[in-house]
Amino acid sequence: MLASYAPSVRFETLDDALAALRERGLRISTPRRLVLEALFEAEGPVSAEHLARRLELDVASVYRNLETLERSGLAAHLHLGHGPSLHVLVGRGEREYLYCEGCGAVETLVPDALDRVRAEVRRGFGYEARFTHFPIVGLCPKCAASPPGRR
Amino acid sequence: MLASYAPSVRFETLDDALAALRERGLRISTPRRLVLEALFEAEGPVSAEHLARRLELDVASVYRNLETLERSGLAAHLHLGHGPSLHVLVGRGEREYLYCEGCGAVETLVPDALDRVRAEVRRGFGYEARFTHFPIVGLCPKCAASPPGRR
Repeated sequence: MLASYAPSVRFETLDDALAALRERGLRISTPRRLVLEALFEAEGPVSAEHLARRLELDVASVYRNLETLERSGLAAHLHLGHGPSLHVLVGRGEREYLYCEGCGAVETLVPDALDRVRAEVRRGFGYEARFTHFPIVGLCPKCAASPPGRR
Repeated sequence: MLASYAPSVRFETLDDALAALRERGLRISTPRRLVLEALFEAEGPVSAEHLARRLELDVASVYRNLETLERSGLAAHLHLGHGPSLHVLVGRGEREYLYCEGCGAVETLVPDALDRVRAEVRRGFGYEARFTHFPIVGLCPKCAASPPGRR
């Protein structure tokens, strides 16, 4: 699925999110509610496999529900390096990310934190860069400082 | 495989590349030679599936040879959006890329073209960004200018 460039739904609480789903005519099945709750409780982006294990649900059912949440504008997915795609709620606005290829660290950033980087890309190439779906990949300060042999 | 941050082997011609493989004690089998030739002829990064079809080789054999070329420092792979990983020779130095999520356009850049972007990332977050393996993703000037409904 191509990640949407459309503004997503704003919500703060689980009840808001459930109301947004109902407004779109979507049924709140138990797995759907569980997936939504687990995304609220997660501290950052999580994989479908992680959710399936935690919730003791079939991974295909978790995927289907994540897709519905994404199509409804409540969730988004992103790709960190070679790992599985990760899922996150977007009720407070989409986030952008930095990912360290050395140690796997992820830095979650507020929407405007990368604006100067984005402006440099625009200035040089006219591209409108977006690091929500495919974050900036590189080495974190710690990994960048350590000699290559130790990475 | 974690893309290497080590400097890669320099080579200009197919003969140089074959010599570099022999120096590493690697046998030049027919599939290996064919894959190397096809990478030389390709105009940009290509997928293993594309090479397998073109060379009428087993895709597993193409993958194995691409992996050997990458481990030997002659080739690299990169990820453009949701597509398969793509492979490219690095004899003239690694390239960095911009990828348009709208139309699939790929812009290949010389190593220092993104230095100002990299400097902004370093200044803000201390990360050493690298767009060889996971390029900058966004919308190209044309897609960024067209109304969302037409993308």
